[in-house]
Amino acid sequence: MDIVSQNKSFAGSQGVYTHASKVCAGDMTFGLFLPEEANEGPVPLLWYLSGLTCTHANAMEKAGAQAWCAEHGIALVLPDTSPRGDNVANDEAYDLGQGAGFYVNATQDPWKPHFQMWDYVAHELPDLLANEFALEMDRQAITGHSMGGHGALTLAMGLPGRFRSVSAFAPIANPTASDWGRKQLSAYLGDDESLWAAHDATLMMREKGFDGPVLIDQGADDNFWDLLRPETLAEAMVARKQDGLHRVQKGYDHSYYFISSLMEDHVAFHADALYA
Amino acid sequence: MDIVSQNKSFAGSQGVYTHASKVCAGDMTFGLFLPEEANEGPVPLLWYLSGLTCTHANAMEKAGAQAWCAEHGIALVLPDTSPRGDNVANDEAYDLGQGAGFYVNATQDPWKPHFQMWDYVAHELPDLLANEFALEMDRQAITGHSMGGHGALTLAMGLPGRFRSVSAFAPIANPTASDWGRKQLSAYLGDDESLWAAHDATLMMREKGFDGPVLIDQGADDNFWDLLRPETLAEAMVARKQDGLHRVQKGYDHSYYFISSLMEDHVAFHADALYA
Repeated sequence: MDIVSQNKSFAGSQGVYTHASKVCAGDMTFGLFLPEEANEGPVPLLWYLSGLTCTHANAMEKAGAQAWCAEHGIALVLPDTSPRGDNVANDEAYDLGQGAGFYVNATQDPWKPHFQMWDYVAHELPDLLANEFALEMDRQAITGHSMGGHGALTLAMGLPGRFRSVSAFAPIANPTASDWGRKQLSAYLGDDESLWAAHDATLMMREKGFDGPVLIDQGADDNFWDLLRPETLAEAMVARKQDGLHRVQKGYDHSYYFISSLMEDHVAFHADALYA
Repeated sequence: MDIVSQNKSFAGSQGVYTHASKVCAGDMTFGLFLPEEANEGPVPLLWYLSGLTCTHANAMEKAGAQAWCAEHGIALVLPDTSPRGDNVANDEAYDLGQGAGFYVNATQDPWKPHFQMWDYVAHELPDLLANEFALEMDRQAITGHSMGGHGALTLAMGLPGRFRSVSAFAPIANPTASDWGRKQLSAYLGDDESLWAAHDATLMMREKGFDGPVLIDQGADDNFWDLLRPETLAEAMVARKQDGLHRVQKGYDHSYYFISSLMEDHVAFHADALYA
């Protein structure tokens, strides 16, 4: 693992690191904020998964999460959204290929050799973090935005016992029924739709739910509303009597202005679960 | 004036606007955050002047100021750092020309036709803001970073009675004695150094000081320390018995991670003065 940069931030450290990923067969970059408390001993870990076109840097620079993670003494890891590089498959569209890994393990060519983002976020990166940093890996929570909200919800429900809480900002909530989903799931996983169900938050909520609290915020003025399908997830949460809240936030759109405005709430929500 | 974008942010509105500037002889862009209270009536105004290479957008996206301006009910205006465009003079160096206006009125060619940033920030933009938005123009404060800290301090001292408080993050504190200053002041103002003194915060502090509180934060690990010359400003503040604080912040560098970490303090400092 190499250090790309480290900047003091809110008395802690905002780092950027690269490492050779086995599962993605290439170098991967991630951001990690460590609060001041990490100098004294292990701290809880919050994951933030980003949306389409993003790298680790977007949320690191724009989400304003460091202030609140510092307040609660929580580390924040910011993975990239896909493998990258000249030797990695790509597509001209912004919503497929590099920057659009969708947090799945691709089984189809040309994506299969590098696009193993589920295994990267679920297994390889946690192992690296546990080895390299002062983190309490039995106290983890996860959040994300848009495609990253999809990732957060599907990883939380797909890995029972791993995360104590899950939240999402405007998640892609029902990708098997949306153009943000059907295109990518067929490209990465093939045409057998039964294999897609493990990557659809609404279907997973209907099937099993999450063993902990869930917080969803969705901007009412989100211009991607129809692609996100928030109403299907809200219905599934209520039908399951899921512990948690699905909130529609008046006037907010899909941008980081929305995310940063609600970030304090989300970090406090996770802190409650992590320190319970 | 045209609206480029408006995003709901911390219950208020983060807007970006363009307008035809007479003094800069071309279109200028600025950001303006309005807190929710601006819907009810005029609110106080904080200026944030940015540093070399920045546009209005850097601080808007990375400084995290909206959270604290919303908390205190204060508007935040984010001007650009220079005129821009294909017909505007420029230089290959990052620290001269477009993105590097230094908040002066250029008297020398090729800069004179467009580079009138002092008049733009001191007169034209305030007039526009007063006409277009719900702002209490008798309650203004100013801050800035690096070149923008230089701008904030020189405008505050150069326009007595205009601003109730001034702060700066790692300001260019003594440009007449630094390579971040001598190069630009000679290019924009010519070789008569007596004309430079009205654009040097340390010289102005020695000469007259500021009729209100001053807050300076300077990162101890700032790699531009020698260009900023913070010690000269600190000395001048104490010699004048200036109301205010000059603080060296251990471990912090010159980045927006430094700015965002201290922003809550700066906005609270200005709120105290604006509501006094």
